[in-house]
Amino acid sequence: MLTPVEFSRLVIKRGTVAVVSDPHEIANVLGKRGIEFMIADSRNALIKIFFTIPSCVPATPFDCSGGCITSDDVHDFLKTGNFVGLSEVMNVPGVLNGDAELMRKIEHARQYHLAIDGHAPGLSGEDLQKYVQAGISTDHECTELKEALEKIGAGMKILVREGSAARNYENLKSLIVEHSKELMFCTDDSHPDELIEVGHIDKLVKRAIKDGFDLFDVWRIACMNPIKHYGLNVGMLREGDPADFVIFEDLEDLTVKSVYIGGVEKWDADSLNKFECKEIHIQDLSRMVQKELICIEVADGEIVTQKRTFSIQETRFNFESDIQRDILKIVYLNRYADKPPQVGYIHGVGLQRGAFASSVSHDSHNIIAVGCSDEEIASAINRLIAEKGGLVVIDSAEQEMMPLPIAGIISDRDGYYVAGMWKRLMNRLVNMGCRLSSPFMTLSFMALIVIPELKIGEEGLFEYSNFRFISSKE
Amino acid sequence: MLTPVEFSRLVIKRGTVAVVSDPHEIANVLGKRGIEFMIADSRNALIKIFFTIPSCVPATPFDCSGGCITSDDVHDFLKTGNFVGLSEVMNVPGVLNGDAELMRKIEHARQYHLAIDGHAPGLSGEDLQKYVQAGISTDHECTELKEALEKIGAGMKILVREGSAARNYENLKSLIVEHSKELMFCTDDSHPDELIEVGHIDKLVKRAIKDGFDLFDVWRIACMNPIKHYGLNVGMLREGDPADFVIFEDLEDLTVKSVYIGGVEKWDADSLNKFECKEIHIQDLSRMVQKELICIEVADGEIVTQKRTFSIQETRFNFESDIQRDILKIVYLNRYADKPPQVGYIHGVGLQRGAFASSVSHDSHNIIAVGCSDEEIASAINRLIAEKGGLVVIDSAEQEMMPLPIAGIISDRDGYYVAGMWKRLMNRLVNMGCRLSSPFMTLSFMALIVIPELKIGEEGLFEYSNFRFISSKE
Repeated sequence: MLTPVEFSRLVIKRGTVAVVSDPHEIANVLGKRGIEFMIADSRNALIKIFFTIPSCVPATPFDCSGGCITSDDVHDFLKTGNFVGLSEVMNVPGVLNGDAELMRKIEHARQYHLAIDGHAPGLSGEDLQKYVQAGISTDHECTELKEALEKIGAGMKILVREGSAARNYENLKSLIVEHSKELMFCTDDSHPDELIEVGHIDKLVKRAIKDGFDLFDVWRIACMNPIKHYGLNVGMLREGDPADFVIFEDLEDLTVKSVYIGGVEKWDADSLNKFECKEIHIQDLSRMVQKELICIEVADGEIVTQKRTFSIQETRFNFESDIQRDILKIVYLNRYADKPPQVGYIHGVGLQRGAFASSVSHDSHNIIAVGCSDEEIASAINRLIAEKGGLVVIDSAEQEMMPLPIAGIISDRDGYYVAGMWKRLMNRLVNMGCRLSSPFMTLSFMALIVIPELKIGEEGLFEYSNFRFISSKE
Repeated sequence: MLTPVEFSRLVIKRGTVAVVSDPHEIANVLGKRGIEFMIADSRNALIKIFFTIPSCVPATPFDCSGGCITSDDVHDFLKTGNFVGLSEVMNVPGVLNGDAELMRKIEHARQYHLAIDGHAPGLSGEDLQKYVQAGISTDHECTELKEALEKIGAGMKILVREGSAARNYENLKSLIVEHSKELMFCTDDSHPDELIEVGHIDKLVKRAIKDGFDLFDVWRIACMNPIKHYGLNVGMLREGDPADFVIFEDLEDLTVKSVYIGGVEKWDADSLNKFECKEIHIQDLSRMVQKELICIEVADGEIVTQKRTFSIQETRFNFESDIQRDILKIVYLNRYADKPPQVGYIHGVGLQRGAFASSVSHDSHNIIAVGCSDEEIASAINRLIAEKGGLVVIDSAEQEMMPLPIAGIISDRDGYYVAGMWKRLMNRLVNMGCRLSSPFMTLSFMALIVIPELKIGEEGLFEYSNFRFISSKE
């Protein structure tokens, strides 16, 4: 259900540098155009994606599909040099009965010296021999050891499949001991949640290592065998090879540190970010106010602010907010150091409850938060620190957040997600009484002290006209 | 808030083939590493992304930023040949007072004959002359006509900015008449929802054309001026140029048909899909049943089914379902033609209410639906047809859907969205009583008639052991 590009973004994190992929699902819908799309899209993928050309589209004469790949199409595609093999020959009777059209496809693949994949559940005896003699060299449908051994005996390579539904590793794993040269791993029909939560080929490597099989046997199956079998242009760390490799934290849990493809680091586990600040405590935000209180006054749609002073009738040992007069706390926290938060007051936001915070603020992208209570402001800031950046809204116990893990200012998700979350956060703030048309935008300018008149920064409130920091009690 | 790749996916749909981008936000957080990330990521973008090198990181001496770009860094970056200019010189006093470090950055850019961008709100008179003499040739901060005219007079190009917050087109548009050679368009700080719903540079072109300005003046501003000013390697449809161009439906609404970059079609408005079937009516699903009813019996986790017969006590003119005995309707609809739906019955799904449908089904990916009522089954199928494919769950008035717009089997969203929606649809079906651990997976095998025993296809139920279609009444 993912494009090649999106697929590559999930599996590179699992240490996959290359895959052999069969575009036969989309070929059944769109024919040649579907295959061309897959190849074009894969050019923008993070990993190397190799394709085999489908041999059985449509799957059967009974099928009412949208596309058809003839033997001439197979030939045309093979001429492009974009394929490493012929996809699973599911039409076993076609091979056994010498179906002319099917045999032409196989012939084309042989002519280009390409691997021919099989799909022959339960095939054995003479039929199996005939199937193999046609040039078919792999099978990924073995569910039992005996079946796999007969196929290996007949000269086939066995792809041990472990997807979200069909799971054959447990029954076939003992082959690793004596047959590591004849095995490969595959993960057909893995759902995206399985790729994210359980893993890709790494999940098989990890299990095999935990099961006590020889490390080098397991890695040969995972890495070298497919490269050699399909003749892939993927490096094997020999002199002159393309530099395709993975750096793991260790060889048991297989935590990936970074992935290089063709000598270029394509993925790196270290988040591309900088967050050195520590969690804040509610009491860090406490401020005594007496007589008068200096406020940043914001106007909707303007990045210029005014300085405004409110009179305070009685001393408050911690002035959290005055919802009636729309006086809220604003907090600045340097995210590149472990320093105390700076606290000021702001008028014009209109929030009736809750708090919001952002790690997007001009120009240094430190943390800015505004809220009605110290508890909610602290929650907002601490959530930001925990997630290393983003936009967050706190409404008593409820939290809504868009993480921005890249530098605390960029999402790693698609544009539709970001647009949707942006509107969602806006709407929530409107429901909480916020009167600004773009609250996070306004917030992001509150630390830009080179714009008049009153802003908040490293040493508290900054007064532009005198070009100096002032205390909010002055 | 988007990576260059995700940004490119949004704006290519709007006919943008190239952008000049300033990576100074991420440079403020991560310094050189941030700039390197932007360049590396942009290599996988759909459009051409050119970068200028930030001149003012950190923005001011008061800023506590995470990164710093020195004049030596600027020089090192310029040597790579990856930059088309020096980013906005915001430090106007630095230019006027001849700040040594800043002047070195400007000198480096001049040495490489690169454009130097300005940022000088309100600057005029002698100061403006001095700023321009330093080699700074653009300004995107003009809000008034008079200011823009003075800057044009001083030799600057004016970037007419229309973002989500700052909007200067209305005030500056009259410049188009006499100064189309001195203008460019820009869209700083456009939020993703604005890019999706309103547009990118196309929104400015459209407005200018609607406002009656000369078509060729407007297109010169949008296309040729930036290429010439920054010396971009973007084609202008001259012989020998790279084939970068957009095909529009018309030159007023600017509906994009397709976008070519370097001669390769990188985006195409025609959905990569095939859906020829028409909406179905509830009465198409009506089936009379008497005496006995033949059912597909599914077992969780198996793609093999059984044929099972239930006795029916009284004739029903439309047998919708029997929740007690877990007999539900299953419907097959060929999506590549306008044919009536095929109706059968299924046992083992367990649904207590509602319906679900999918355009992912082996091997031809026709539509399969299962449900408790004809109304909900029809809703599910018709929603699929309306969206041209995906997975859908109907629970009385509520609909939950994951669209799969690419061939009806692939999402155009990121892997986390697809994984999230997949689980969400699963959970909803569990709440509706479904007993299958992977209901859409099971559904997808119900049209694979080459697997025993009873499946549904083009002419109704298909019995594998006799290898023929049967009517459900037989």
